This record gives sequence, structure tokens and C-alpha cells, in this order.
Amino acid sequence: MAATTARGAVLRGFHQPLEIDAAEIPAPGPGAVVARITLAGICGTDIHLSHGNLPIPTPLVLGHEAVGVVAALGEGVTTDFSGNPLAVGDAITWTSSIPCGRCHWCVVEGERTLCETRRIYGINQRWDVAPHLSGGFAEAIYLQPGSAIFKLPAGVTPEMVISLGCAGPTAYHGVVDLTGVKPGETVLVQGAGPVGIAAAMFAHLSGAAQVLIVGGPQERLDLARRMHVGTDWLDIFSVTDPAERLKWVMERTPHGRGADVVLECTGVPTAVQEGMDAARRNGKMLVLGQYTDRGTTPINPHVITKKQLTMIGSWAFSERHYLGYMANLPAMQERFGLDPMITRYRLEDVNAAMADMATGKVMKPVLVM
Amino acid sequence: MAATTARGAVLRGFHQPLEIDAAEIPAPGPGAVVARITLAGICGTDIHLSHGNLPIPTPLVLGHEAVGVVAALGEGVTTDFSGNPLAVGDAITWTSSIPCGRCHWCVVEGERTLCETRRIYGINQRWDVAPHLSGGFAEAIYLQPGSAIFKLPAGVTPEMVISLGCAGPTAYHGVVDLTGVKPGETVLVQGAGPVGIAAAMFAHLSGAAQVLIVGGPQERLDLARRMHVGTDWLDIFSVTDPAERLKWVMERTPHGRGADVVLECTGVPTAVQEGMDAARRNGKMLVLGQYTDRGTTPINPHVITKKQLTMIGSWAFSERHYLGYMANLPAMQERFGLDPMITRYRLEDVNAAMADMATGKVMKPVLVM
Amino acid sequence: MAATTARGAVLRGFHQPLEIDAAEIPAPGPGAVVARITLAGICGTDIHLSHGNLPIPTPLVLGHEAVGVVAALGEGVTTDFSGNPLAVGDAITWTSSIPCGRCHWCVVEGERTLCETRRIYGINQRWDVAPHLSGGFAEAIYLQPGSAIFKLPAGVTPEMVISLGCAGPTAYHGVVDLTGVKPGETVLVQGAGPVGIAAAMFAHLSGAAQVLIVGGPQERLDLARRMHVGTDWLDIFSVTDPAERLKWVMERTPHGRGADVVLECTGVPTAVQEGMDAARRNGKMLVLGQYTDRGTTPINPHVITKKQLTMIGSWAFSERHYLGYMANLPAMQERFGLDPMITRYRLEDVNAAMADMATGKVMKPVLVM
Amino acid sequence: MAATTARGAVLRGFHQPLEIDAAEIPAPGPGAVVARITLAGICGTDIHLSHGNLPIPTPLVLGHEAVGVVAALGEGVTTDFSGNPLAVGDAITWTSSIPCGRCHWCVVEGERTLCETRRIYGINQRWDVAPHLSGGFAEAIYLQPGSAIFKLPAGVTPEMVISLGCAGPTAYHGVVDLTGVKPGETVLVQGAGPVGIAAAMFAHLSGAAQVLIVGGPQERLDLARRMHVGTDWLDIFSVTDPAERLKWVMERTPHGRGADVVLECTGVPTAVQEGMDAARRNGKMLVLGQYTDRGTTPINPHVITKKQLTMIGSWAFSERHYLGYMANLPAMQERFGLDPMITRYRLEDVNAAMADMATGKVMKPVLVM
Repeated sequence: MAATTARGAVLRGFHQPLEIDAAEIPAPGPGAVVARITLAGICGTDIHLSHGNLPIPTPLVLGHEAVGVVAALGEGVTTDFSGNPLAVGDAITWTSSIPCGRCHWCVVEGERTLCETRRIYGINQRWDVAPHLSGGFAEAIYLQPGSAIFKLPAGVTPEMVISLGCAGPTAYHGVVDLTGVKPGETVLVQGAGPVGIAAAMFAHLSGAAQVLIVGGPQERLDLARRMHVGTDWLDIFSVTDPAERLKWVMERTPHGRGADVVLECTGVPTAVQEGMDAARRNGKMLVLGQYTDRGTTPINPHVITKKQLTMIGSWAFSERHYLGYMANLPAMQERFGLDPMITRYRLEDVNAAMADMATGKVMKPVLVM
Repeated sequence: MAATTARGAVLRGFHQPLEIDAAEIPAPGPGAVVARITLAGICGTDIHLSHGNLPIPTPLVLGHEAVGVVAALGEGVTTDFSGNPLAVGDAITWTSSIPCGRCHWCVVEGERTLCETRRIYGINQRWDVAPHLSGGFAEAIYLQPGSAIFKLPAGVTPEMVISLGCAGPTAYHGVVDLTGVKPGETVLVQGAGPVGIAAAMFAHLSGAAQVLIVGGPQERLDLARRMHVGTDWLDIFSVTDPAERLKWVMERTPHGRGADVVLECTGVPTAVQEGMDAARRNGKMLVLGQYTDRGTTPINPHVITKKQLTMIGSWAFSERHYLGYMANLPAMQERFGLDPMITRYRLEDVNAAMADMATGKVMKPVLVM
Repeated sequence: MAATTARGAVLRGFHQPLEIDAAEIPAPGPGAVVARITLAGICGTDIHLSHGNLPIPTPLVLGHEAVGVVAALGEGVTTDFSGNPLAVGDAITWTSSIPCGRCHWCVVEGERTLCETRRIYGINQRWDVAPHLSGGFAEAIYLQPGSAIFKLPAGVTPEMVISLGCAGPTAYHGVVDLTGVKPGETVLVQGAGPVGIAAAMFAHLSGAAQVLIVGGPQERLDLARRMHVGTDWLDIFSVTDPAERLKWVMERTPHGRGADVVLECTGVPTAVQEGMDAARRNGKMLVLGQYTDRGTTPINPHVITKKQLTMIGSWAFSERHYLGYMANLPAMQERFGLDPMITRYRLEDVNAAMADMATGKVMKPVLVM
Repeated sequence: MAATTARGAVLRGFHQPLEIDAAEIPAPGPGAVVARITLAGICGTDIHLSHGNLPIPTPLVLGHEAVGVVAALGEGVTTDFSGNPLAVGDAITWTSSIPCGRCHWCVVEGERTLCETRRIYGINQRWDVAPHLSGGFAEAIYLQPGSAIFKLPAGVTPEMVISLGCAGPTAYHGVVDLTGVKPGETVLVQGAGPVGIAAAMFAHLSGAAQVLIVGGPQERLDLARRMHVGTDWLDIFSVTDPAERLKWVMERTPHGRGADVVLECTGVPTAVQEGMDAARRNGKMLVLGQYTDRGTTPINPHVITKKQLTMIGSWAFSERHYLGYMANLPAMQERFGLDPMITRYRLEDVNAAMADMATGKVMKPVLVM
């Protein structure tokens, strides 16, 4: 017998522990789908959200990375986003945001990730407003009409999808869609969190001859090394002098010219100048990690002019990046083995999982429902 | 009877006036050309050079912008760079630098402007070493083998070539070759010196619907207005608050979204953040004006990520940019009339011309030999 | 008192004259708009459609190029596509097609012009099915929810919008969005119909130093010449030997290297090889005119390899191209004067207008309602 | 004691067997290098050359793919092209052509492969003119000043370099430099000769999710399969109906949309239309295999317009592509194992090697000196 209620971990106020509560599972309206969530990832952004660093409503069920199975299909829903037949029991995932599909950014720019009114599961959909179940840290979710739902293709497991969480499509957008790495190039990745690891994986898949990872803490670098992500690793907590880190990078690039491509995935403003210094002349640098507005940092713009540097910003992801990410999961699984990314927790241990993410003790905490 | 000596304005020490001296005009060796200089432009960089802000040798004849006529052709020289027949008396110009043509930057990257050993007339060729005559502030120049010499095509006069000086090919490189402006776009140009004016002209030629110029001093903006360069002008010395300037720009961009393309041509580090703020999301920004290393400035890299900004550096120019510049001179002449850019001086008044450039009192001082 | 019925020119069967009929003007439902049509353009495709060369339903009111005024706004419609306030009496235009906004092409590729289920006014919306009024050759149109409606901006008149018809945004898509012309380049335009003229105009606006037009008949070339569209013109009916035409082009390109960019806008398969032969090595060629499937033609693919040619296809247009087109109309009007493009007809003379378009006697027949 | 003469296989007339002759090994002049050749590849083009299908001089030592060791350094040569110290005994390779470095194509376009006066070892350097030794099918070669000589980097063996011959840098140019394959894409490679195999390898290195190879004969497909080059293979000699081959490709592409990228590497004109049909809308197609001018073939240009196809030509390669190729050799070796590409012959068996290449019996015949 199917459950009629679902539990969720509710954020009621900033800097407070999440509380487990429950809501009735509604029947899906026309165009909607109700899914039972099986796995939900915890993202670094969830920590920021729980601290009120971004303007979000409460009460709220956090969680914008999730995989589940179809519990009920609303009227008119017969296929997933890509036109594959969809049935109760199918394993699915979905993009966290629903762009409006009508605005300048969606239609004219074709950059749905820039839509100013997009609804985002686990971020701007309240718990106390129907249909309530709109976040990943819960046993079920109500997927509104317009959601891009993807049936997991053959060869893609729920664990693979959740292993990188939103870092996967975010890195696809920045690294593959906007920056581009060519076979044989030397790539510097700044940052060893999920975004850095995902970026490094895409650099490998793109054929990079070298993938230098400068990040930390040591546990994350060790994991990267064990998974064969990266070709060389530098711990920023051990080598705290940026000049020394620059020297380390330069020594590893062909003829000491610097990295062909720098992928900044840190969230730390000072990393940007450090990346600019490590890029070769006529090179490219992706600024992917500056999600939070932490104000200004000293940067020397002469370096951009002198080096003929191209610096590229990339924001979140949309449907095409999610599909691009999933198309690469089998290769990622074969090459790196994705399971070591995951540390599993029960829903009721969500606060412990959040704490472990905050310290960087684990790479990707996953709630198993 | 042809002159056997040529006068030149020699920089013997930094922060000293240039001194008029003379040297014998050598006969051109194989592959070389001797030219009589008719017009030589003074560039903002010449001011910096005379102050020792860049590492250059002395004694030196400054001047890297010049037009002249062929005085003598060395053995084997029968055509100009493009294969046009070349004869004594032909009006010519030439690129200021001679890249090595063999290094990584010349051959592999195809960016000859990044060549680390390029010889540059008026910058790194000494007066006290044969062939002596290697700068523009002189009555003659010895064009070494490997120089890209261009016979002025029909419809291009020496005055047109010198009117923008090196700012012309520099702006072509940055604006046309690397950034690109589409017909109908709104462009913000930061800076109203020769580089800013040249960038604004290329924005117009590329079909920009609006070209907003934020710069100064008022005299330069007035000249731009008279020449119909720009569609709206803001004097930074009158409006000193960056927030007010940003508001001024935003009000002029479609739906207040910001400029489609920002062309930074200021030389002032703080202009970079101001340009980033004025660019629309998913927009482009050229960082062209940061030629001198003036150290760091506070920049907020979150803006790059959040806006999905692409920032592009461009350094100097090479042969292809010079040719691109000249191909556009007839259209520039027809559309803007280039002569008002020029203020004429005699060679012996070079120090007055330098002083007028330093204060921004004139747009392009030109020595008439 | 507002009219309650609107007349329309109905295609009841292929190769038959259009018949004037009338339908009741419905009130707009939620999200819809009813517009009174003031001007409707006739496109070369309308001739093909009336001959049954493309699979369309009948009865049908043809016409996919139109301008009108808002007669009634459906519930919820308060602004145009771009967010400008919309009121009864406002002059408007609209894109002819409504992409689904949900499919692979709309969302993943971001190429809404490739949407396989897009509804197209005047092409696949029947006259005998409510709301009946779905084509341009009529006094009114029912603009369905999802239509991209644009209030004419200041400086853009209905005559300007209709002067190029769908050729305007089609050329914007191909020339500006996909191919790109740089200031100073030499462009060859093949074809002198509305698409060729629009492509040539965009080449001019993009700064082309030369725009060579090879097309016909002579009347269209004469019109182009009078409007200063093109810098040199060759009549294919006078010069029927492709080798002679190639020679004519080559003589006009710098150093006889061929055109930097070739814009094929003919609809004639053999023009493609001719364009490939006229392009310079490392050049670009837009294949824009091959809308109808006329089968194979002899082409030598060795030319693509040997010349390192890039050939680019472009299909129709979507909202962003229509906006791009309109952003350029003031400049087009100022530079070329658009009114000479238009020949005016009354709705009841639609068959005469169609006949004049078929012979190429006029450039753009416009029905004035 | 070093040899003072070197043997070479001389082409004295078309359609004649090569004859072994000998020449004195000259001392290298300033800037030149004399190398002892250890391995020389035979290319499909060598067969065409020996038949007089391309305009070449005779007598000639064929061979434009070779690896050797430095025998003597001319005055002034202390490093290889990249600045690595060079000494007698070092294993080296070199690009087959020496562009002039001064022309429009070398300098302005930056496409040295288009240089019209480039000298090419084994193709346009005569045997009966000093320095005689200018082709690969010989025991020594005189590398003229201006040759790009590369010391084999650590991890790159002579066998690895020769395994793909000139197909390696040719494919790098077309696939990596000009076309680009993104991780996760489905790629169709047409042709299973060295160029097709190299293109398929670069598609794999670039992260293609699927690499479909349509080519032949069966022996070459079997070799590709054994080396794990490609993910699926179709023998054109077994499946001779293009419609059936198209169906085979379509069934293997996501949602039957066609290949994201088509890499044509066949040398057969009819393959171009077949590739266009197999590409998805908005897709890319590289036309790399049409080196020989075999005249026109029926092609439907409507497909280019309708599909918004981008077709890209690529011609030969220059220094940067050779470096790009070598940077990928360690990854190619690790992933595919390159030795099975090679079939070894003695210099005196060169005619047997040529015959085996002509029939496609072997993939890459290599002369071992």
C-alpha cells in the first residue's frame, strides 16, 4: 500500500537545525508528477541557505539534488522531457529549476539558467504552501507542470546521478558548454569540492593531457587521487603561499607557460587572481566558483590585457546541461567509479549530514530514503 | 638632391626633453627599405616611455606611428607586404613591430603580437647603434628586413593612416578580431582617448545601434560629438560618482539590462569594475586599456559568474590587424572625417607636442616632417 | 463602431486564385490578442504555397508577414513580448510562428526555428477551423496565446517593418547570428530578391567594405542600386556564363583571392557551387536560399577541403532574430530608405499582387487594409 | 664510423617502380640539420603521387612521414622548434612542409597550411638537385633551415609518431582545431583508413559517447575493433546501399536524430551527401577526406539550409597541429595501443609496401631503415 504522507526535513529559521515534519502526498494535477524520492544530495549551497546567506523563504524543505521513482502521473503526462514513455515505478531525476520559458533570457538569449522568475525546488518553493512537497530532503516531491523530468537511461543508475549532484550539470555548463578543453591541453582546476571534482572529470573526458588540482582539504584530494581524478594535486592548506602554488603549477605546464585552461571552482574570491596568474598567455579561465557575493578582492586587470586572457562566467545550469551531464555519466562511472563520492545518511540524520558537508569532511552527503 | 642625413628627436634620459640630433641615412641592405618620414604620430605610450615607466633602452628615437615615402629599396625588395609593386616615391606605412616569425607565439598560437623577441621601432631599437634611424620622430627610418611595409592603397591618404595612430589597429584587434559587435547592439565605450575613439568608430562600423561613450576630458568628448563618434557622451570629470554613471548607462540600454558589449579603453584600473557593472548578463567586455601595470584594484568576481560575463583581453596588434584597420579607413573617413583628430607640429616642436598629449589637450599630435 | 467581421483572401485549392471571404472576429480568449491588420506582405514562399509545393492544409488564408493594431486584449495580456505595456490601438507586429517551447529544439538546442510542431500563421492554421483568422491576407488576425507580439518601438513605422517582410529576420538569423561579417570585408551576395537585399543590407550595416550583388532581374538590381544597397551589381540574365561571373567577382576582391564571405540567397541549387568557387580560401559561405527541396545539383566537395571553407545553413527565424531585425530598422531606414521596396495593393487585388511577385516585377507587394 | 652516403627509393617516372639509388650525405649548412631516418611511413597520397595524380617533379624521393635521429647540426642550431636542447643522437621528427612564413596565408590568416610556396619533403623537393636527400623513403634527410624539428618528448616513441603518419596531425587539425567534439556526443566517422582511424581516436579522446565508423575494407574495421577505436562498425562493402547505411546510423543516434558530428575521411565524393544525411539538424560535418579533385558529385544543398548544418573544410596541417598530435600520443598509446597500426618493411621492399597500401591490405606500411 502506498504511503499517503511523506516526511521532509524543514528549515524553519536560519541557523537552526532542520526539523522532520510530514505532509500529505497530493494527487498530481494535469501535467504534474508525484515522485517518491530515493536519494537526495546535500550541496554546499544548502549550508549557505540554512545560514540565510541567500534570500529564501521559510519554512522550506531544502534539497535541489534528487533522484526518485514515479509514484503517480498527472493527466496528460505520458513521456519524460525527451519523449521517452513514462510509467509509475520508473526511476527518474529532474532539473531543480523551472524557467518561465517566455522571458528575454529563456527565449531571446536562450539561457534559461538566467530566467529571473524560475521556480527552484528546495530553494524558493515554500513548505507551508500547497503542494508542500517541493524540496529534495523529503520522501516525496510534487513535480509541477513544466518540470524537466528525465527517465534514467540504460546504464545510468540513481547512485551515478546523485554522486556529483548539481555540481555535475553546473560543471558541464561551464567547462563543456562555455569554456571547452581540447585533447592534449594542460588544465588547472582550482578547488576540490564537488564542483572542482566534476570540472576535473570533464577536463579528463575532454582529453586533457594534464589535470592539476589545487585545493583541499587533504581528504578530498586523497579521494580525487584514489578515483584517478587529476594528474597532480596540491593541498592549499599545506602550501599556503600563493607564489609557491604558482611556481608548482608553472613547473608542470609545458615550457612553464602556464595552464591552457584554468577552471576556478573555489568560492573564494582571492582564487581568481591566482588563477589568472597561472593561466598562459592567450589562455582561457572559467570563473565558476563565485556563486556567493563576497564583495571585492584585489585583482590586477593588466594581466587580462597583457596575457590576452579570456575569462568566462557560468551560472548554474538548465535542461541541456543536465542532459549533457547524464550523457557523460557512463563514461565517468567507467573511468573514475563514482560511488566513492557518496557518503550515505538517513533522512533523520540530515543535520549530521549538513554538519559533515560544512566541514568538508565528506564529498557528497546523500540522504537515502 | 636627396638629403644624406636625417634629423631625429632623441630621448637621452627619462624625464628629459627630447633633443634634435642627426644621423647619416644609410643605404638599405638586402631586404631593407629606407623611407623618408612625412608624418609621425605621438601616442600616450610615448609619454609613459619618456618617463621610464616601461623598460626601454636609451638613447632612443621615440615614435611607433609613422607614414612616409620610399627613399631607397634594398636588394630583392620589389613589392610591399601584400605583393603590390613598390617603387621609390611610393607612400607607405608599416607595422611598428617585427615579430620573430619562428617562436611558439608566432607559429603555434598565431598571435604574433605576443612574440617575446619582436623588435619595435621607436621602443626597443637604439639610436646609438646602426642603422640608428629606427624611430618615428625623425626625418627618415631604416626599415629592417622582415618589416611589414604597406603601400597606401587608393583612397587611403597618409593623414587618414596617422589620424588614429596605433590606436586604430589596436582597436581593430580588440573590437573586431576578438570581441565582435553585432548590428543593432548597444555598446559602451569607456575612455575618450585615441583608443576609445577608434573602438567607438569600429562599434559604429559594426552596426551598433547605440555607442555610449563615458570618458573625458570635455574637449575630447566635444571632438567625438562633432565627428559623430558615439551616440551619447558622459564626462567623467563632471559626473564623478560611478553609481551615477552606471545609472546613466543603464537608462540608455534596452530595458535597463546593460550594454551588450563594453569596450574598456581607459588605462584606469577602476574602470574595469565599472564596466563589469554596466554590462548586461550574458554580455561581453573587452579589457583593452590596461596596458600599464598599475597593480591591483578591487574587483568583484561574483559579477563574472552571476552575469555569465565573458571578459576578453587584447594586446597591441600585428600585421593582420593593421591591414584590417586600413581596409576600414575609407569608411571611417566618409563617415566621421578623420582630419579633426590631428593637431600638427614641426619636428623641432616635439616637446610641446608631447606636453599637449600628456594633458589630453589634443587628441592626436602629429609631427609633420 | 468596430467591425464585427473581417475579410480574408482564402486559398481553397492549389493553382487557384485566392477568394475574398469573411469571418466573424472572435473575442480574444485568455492570453490571446485580436489585431486589425493594416499591412500584409507577400513573400515568394506564398507563391510556392499557392502552387502546393509545400504540404499545407486548405482552405487557408495565406500571409505570414503583417503589421497591425491591437483591437482587443485577452484576459491577462498587459504587455508585449518584451514587457512593454500593451493597449488597444497600439501598432504591433508579431513573429509568424509559435514554437512549442518544450521540445528538444526549443529547449536543448535553443533553436526554436527548428521546432517540429510550431504553429505558423498563414501556413498551417486553417481558415475553416476556429478562430479562422490566422493569416496575414485579411483584415484581422487572432493571435493565439504564446505568440510573440512586439509593440513597434519609437522610430519604427509599420512600413519599415513590412518593407523586408520575413526576409528581414531570416537574413538577420543567417547573416548576423550565424555567419558574421566583419568591418572591412568583401561580401558576395547571390540573389537580388528580398532575402538577398536584406542580406546585403546587413552586410553593409556590419561594415563590409564591398558588397557585390550577383542576381536579377535588372529591375531588382536597379532598385538595389538606387537604394545604395550593394557596391557593384551583376545581372545574371545578361551574364549567363558562370565562369564570366566568377571572373567578375574575382576581379573585385582584394588580390583576386575571392570573397571573404558569400551569402547565397537565390533558391537556385546551382548557385551553391558558384558561390563556393567565388569564396576565398579560409572563407565562409552562408547557404540561406535553399528553402525548397529541388533535389541534387553537381557540387565539388574537394573545394570545401582544399579551401578550408566553412559552409553554414540557416533556417527561417525565431523571436530573437525578429527583435534583432527590428533593432536595425532605424539604421536601415536612415541608410537606404526602405519605402522603395514596397508596392501597394488593395486586399481585393491580392491575385494581381501575387502575380507581380511571381514574375519578380516588384520587390515586396504589400496589401494595404 | 658514420655512413657517408645514404640510399633512397627514387620515383623516376609515374607508374614505375621506385628504384633504390644513393647520394652523398652533405654536411648541414647554417640552420640546417642532417638526420638519419629510422622509420618512414607510406601514405595513401604516396600512391596517388606515384601515379602522377598530382603535379610533382621527378626524380623524387617520396615520403613525407618520418622519424629519425640527429646526425649533424648546422651552425646555429642548438634547440628544436620548441626550444628544447638538440644534440647529435637525439630522436626527432619534423613537419613535412616549410611554409614561407611571410605571405598572406602565413601571416594574415595564420593558416600556414595554406601557404602557396611551402616546400614539402617527399613531394616537391627533387632528388637530382642538391641537397638531394629531401624525402622520407631514404636513409637520411637534409632538413633545411626553417624546418620545424621536434625532439621526441619523454613518453613518445618513434613507433608512436609513425603509427598514424600524417593522418595524425591532419585529423588533429580538422577534428580538434576546427570542428570540435564535446564529451557525450555521438560521432559518425566515414572512412577506416589512417585518417578515419585518427579522426575516430580524437573523437574518443574528446569524450564522444559513441563513435560510429562506416568504412572498409573488413580488415581495417577488424583492426579498429581490436584496438577499441570506434564503438560500432559498418562495412561499406557488405552494406552497399546508402539508405541502409543511413538507417544503421540513425538507429544508433539518440532519438534517431542523427549524429552530432560527422567526420568525413573517405576521399570518395559521394560520401559527402551520405554524411549530410546522417548529421542531425544543427549539427556539424567535417569534410576532411576530399584531398583529390575528383570532380562534382550530386549533392542536395537544401539539406544544408533545412538542417542548419555547418560544414567545415580542413586542409593538411602545420606546426601547431603536429604539436597537438604529439601531445596526444601518450593518451592514444595508453588507450588504443598504436603498434598494431604498423606493418614493417625494409627499404628495398618499398614497392611491395606501396602495393599493400594501394590495396588497403595494411593500415600503415612503415619502412624500417
